[in-house]
Amino acid sequence: MEKIPYKIYLTENEMPRAWYNLRADMKNKPAPLLNPGTHQPMKAEELSPVFCEELIKQELDNDTPYFEIPQEVYDFYKMYRPSPLVRAYCLEQALDTPAHIYYKFEGNNTSGSHKLNSAIAQAYYAKKQGLKGVTTETGAGQWGTALSMACGYLGLDCKVYMVKVSYEQKPFRREVMRTYGADVTPSPSESTAIGRKILAEHPGTTGSLGCAISEAVEVATSTPGYRYVLGSVLNQVLLHQSIIGLETEAALKKYDIVPDVIIGCAGGGSNLGGLIAPFMRDKIQGKLDARIIAVEPASCPSLTRGKYAYDFCDTGMVCPLAKMYTLGSNFIPAPNHAGGLRYHGMSSVLSQLYDDGLMEAVSVVQTDVFAAAEKFARVEGILPAPESSHAIKVAMDEALKCRETGEAKNIVFGLTGTGYFDLVAYQRYNDGEMTDYIPTDEELAKSLATLPVID
Amino acid sequence: MEKIPYKIYLTENEMPRAWYNLRADMKNKPAPLLNPGTHQPMKAEELSPVFCEELIKQELDNDTPYFEIPQEVYDFYKMYRPSPLVRAYCLEQALDTPAHIYYKFEGNNTSGSHKLNSAIAQAYYAKKQGLKGVTTETGAGQWGTALSMACGYLGLDCKVYMVKVSYEQKPFRREVMRTYGADVTPSPSESTAIGRKILAEHPGTTGSLGCAISEAVEVATSTPGYRYVLGSVLNQVLLHQSIIGLETEAALKKYDIVPDVIIGCAGGGSNLGGLIAPFMRDKIQGKLDARIIAVEPASCPSLTRGKYAYDFCDTGMVCPLAKMYTLGSNFIPAPNHAGGLRYHGMSSVLSQLYDDGLMEAVSVVQTDVFAAAEKFARVEGILPAPESSHAIKVAMDEALKCRETGEAKNIVFGLTGTGYFDLVAYQRYNDGEMTDYIPTDEELAKSLATLPVID
Repeated sequence: MEKIPYKIYLTENEMPRAWYNLRADMKNKPAPLLNPGTHQPMKAEELSPVFCEELIKQELDNDTPYFEIPQEVYDFYKMYRPSPLVRAYCLEQALDTPAHIYYKFEGNNTSGSHKLNSAIAQAYYAKKQGLKGVTTETGAGQWGTALSMACGYLGLDCKVYMVKVSYEQKPFRREVMRTYGADVTPSPSESTAIGRKILAEHPGTTGSLGCAISEAVEVATSTPGYRYVLGSVLNQVLLHQSIIGLETEAALKKYDIVPDVIIGCAGGGSNLGGLIAPFMRDKIQGKLDARIIAVEPASCPSLTRGKYAYDFCDTGMVCPLAKMYTLGSNFIPAPNHAGGLRYHGMSSVLSQLYDDGLMEAVSVVQTDVFAAAEKFARVEGILPAPESSHAIKVAMDEALKCRETGEAKNIVFGLTGTGYFDLVAYQRYNDGEMTDYIPTDEELAKSLATLPVID
Repeated sequence: MEKIPYKIYLTENEMPRAWYNLRADMKNKPAPLLNPGTHQPMKAEELSPVFCEELIKQELDNDTPYFEIPQEVYDFYKMYRPSPLVRAYCLEQALDTPAHIYYKFEGNNTSGSHKLNSAIAQAYYAKKQGLKGVTTETGAGQWGTALSMACGYLGLDCKVYMVKVSYEQKPFRREVMRTYGADVTPSPSESTAIGRKILAEHPGTTGSLGCAISEAVEVATSTPGYRYVLGSVLNQVLLHQSIIGLETEAALKKYDIVPDVIIGCAGGGSNLGGLIAPFMRDKIQGKLDARIIAVEPASCPSLTRGKYAYDFCDTGMVCPLAKMYTLGSNFIPAPNHAGGLRYHGMSSVLSQLYDDGLMEAVSVVQTDVFAAAEKFARVEGILPAPESSHAIKVAMDEALKCRETGEAKNIVFGLTGTGYFDLVAYQRYNDGEMTDYIPTDEELAKSLATLPVID
C-alpha cells in the first residue's frame, strides 16, 4: 500500500463539478421557513425582497440532489481549491496515538476560512441577477472577509455589519475588508432603525449576530438593487459548503480510507453541514457506520442545551422563522467568549439530523479549546482559528481514547480556518487571562422564554 | 498540450532531496567574510562562538553543489511543501496581457513566508549540536515567526530581538511568536550592552535590522548553550532557500515552460537567491537566456544606489565584514517606510552576480507597491506581504510591456508571503496617508562614509 502523503491533494480535474444537497436524501426533511406573520411556509415570492432569486430556489429545494457549480464560480474555486486533506502525522506522534487523524484544511485562502466557498456563489448569483450590491453581517469576521473578497473580484458593492465586540477585538479584520473594497459598520449601529432600537434598549451592548443580521436585512430591503446574503445557517449555504465534504470523500477514497469519526465545529452549521454531507448520506443509506460529532462552545450551546423549536433567526425578528435547536433569538454569549460560533440557533438541516439521532453533539469550554489550539499550532505548524479549534479539541480527545483502547480509528475533522486575526484572544490565553463561561439554566430559560408560539 | 492548471503542485516524492549551492557554479565566487580585527578571511573556528558547526560548513563551502536535506527537516517541509506554483490567469486577464504570469507562493504556512525553509534547517542543526537555544533578530517579523515555529516544533529556546518600529506596528506578530513559545524583545533594548549604547547615542530611535542583529549576537555569544541564527544575507540561508527555485524549476519543466523573466524582491536576498538559484546556474552555463530582476524599495536601495564594498553586517560592528552592495551599516530607512526589505546590505552571492552583470536591479516606491498589492489581492485572492508586492509591481510592469509589444513572455515571480500582519501599513495606504521616501545623495554619502577601510 502506498504511503499516505502528509497532504492529499486532488487535481483540478478531480474537483467536484456540482454541489450536493443532503436534503434530497434525508428521510425527515428539515422543517420549512415560516412567515413570521402568518406562520405559513414562506413562498419564493415572499423571500425575494431579501434574497437573490437563484438562491431562493436552492433554499427551498429539498429534492434535487445535485446543483451544478456555475463555471465562473468553478474558476474562482480553482484559485484556492481543491483544498488539502492533511494527514496529521505530527499530531499523532505528539499524542502517541494509534489513531489516524486527518483534517480538511480550509484556511488556505486570504479570507482565512471555508466561508469563501459560499461567498463567491452568493455574490455570483447576485451579480447574475443584475444587482448593485449585497449586505451581510459578520461575527468573527471570516464571513465578512470572504464576502468582501468575492464582491471585490466580481465588482459588487458590499456592506458589512460587524458584531461590535469582534469589530473592536479584531481591528485588522476591517482593514482586510476595506482592502477588498467593502464598507464595514460596527453593529448595533445608528445607521438603521433596528440598530437604534437595540441601542436604546441595551446601551453598551457588544452586539450579536442576531442584531447584525437584522441591520443588514433592513438595509438590503430598503435599498434598491441590494439583497441580503448570509454565511451560515441557511440550506443554500450548506449546499455550497458541500464541496468540503465531497473533496474530503474523494481524497479519502484515493487511499481507501473509511472514516470512523467525523468531527466539525458548529456555530450556525455551515462548515459541519458541508463537511458531513456525503458521509451523512452514506450513513442514512446504511453504507457507512461512522460517528458524526458537532462541537459547540459551552458558552453558546444550542444543540446540547437548546430547544428544538421554531424561532426567529435575528434579534429584530424581521427574518422568517426557522425550526432549529435554539437558545432564543435574544441570547447573547458572555463578552468573555472569544471562540466564535456565537449564533443562538443551528441550521435546520443539522437540527433535524441531530433530532433524528444521526449526529452527536458535545460542548467544550474555551480554555480547553485554546490549549488544544496551541498544541496543534506547535506540532502541525498551522495557527488555527478558535472556531476550528473546537473540532481540534474533540479530535484530540478521540485520539487519546484510541491510545487507551489501542484502536487505529480514522478520525477526520474540519480545520475551517486560520487564527491570524484572533490574536487578541490568543494573547488573553497566553497571558493566563482567559476565563470560561457556561450560562446558567436560569439564563437559558430566560432567553428561551422569547420563543414564538406556533400552532 | 494539456492546459496548465491554476496551481501546479509537485507530489511529495517530487520535492527536492537536496539543497543546491549556487556558489559551486559561480565563476567569480562571492568574497569571503573577513575578521573585523585582522581583515583576514574568517576561519570556521572564529565563527563557532556565533554560529552552529554544521551551518558554518555550509557557509564557507563554495564548491559542493548539493547538500542533502536531513530527514527531520524533510519531514517538516512536508507539512507545507511542496508549495504551489500558481498560474496567474486572473491577473493576466485583468491586465489584458498576452504574457503568462506565474508565481511561486511561499505564504502557505503560518509563519506567512518563505523564511520557514531556512528556520527549520537552522533550528535542526542547533538541536543536533545539543544547544539549548538560539537568538535572532527580526524586522517585519516573518523571520522571527518562522524561527519561533521551528523552535516550538523542536523544543528549542528562541529569543527574538524585533526591530522596534515593527514591534509597534505589528502588535500581533509578537503574539504569534509567543504562541510558539518564543521570547520577544523590542530592539534596541536595555537588555544588552550594545542596545544601551545605541539608545544612549540615538534616543527615540525606531531601530534597524543592524541594531537588532548586534543585540542578538551579543546575547548568543554571552549565554552558554546558545548560538545566533540569521534569516537572510548569509550563504547558508540562500542554500536552504534554493528549495524555492528547485521546486519552481521542477514545476515549470512539468509543462515545458521556459521562463523569460524571473523577478524577486530583495532585502538581504534570501528569497531572491533561493528562487533564482537553478535558473542562474543555467544562465551562467549558457543554457538559459532569461532576465533576472531584483526589486528593492526606493527607500533602501542597496543594489541600485549602494556601493560594492566590504562593510559591517550590523550596527554594533561585532559581526564579520562582508563584501556586498551596501548603504553603510548605520543606514536606517525613514520611519514612513512600511514595506519591509530594510537591510542596509545585500547577500554577497547576489552582490557578486549583480556586479558580474548576470542580474538586473530596480527600485520602486511604496505607494506604487501597495497599489499593485491591492490590485493583486482583488484579482488573485491573496493578500500579499508588502515585501512580496515589490515583485508583484515589477511583474505587472513587465506584463504591461508585453501588452504593448504583443509578446507572450513567461514571467515568473516569487510571492514570498502574506500580508495578514501588515494591516497597519494597508490601513495607511487605504486612508491615503502613505507617503514615499527616497534618500538624498547626501544622506547616502553620509552613511557610506562609515564603510571600513580594507587594504
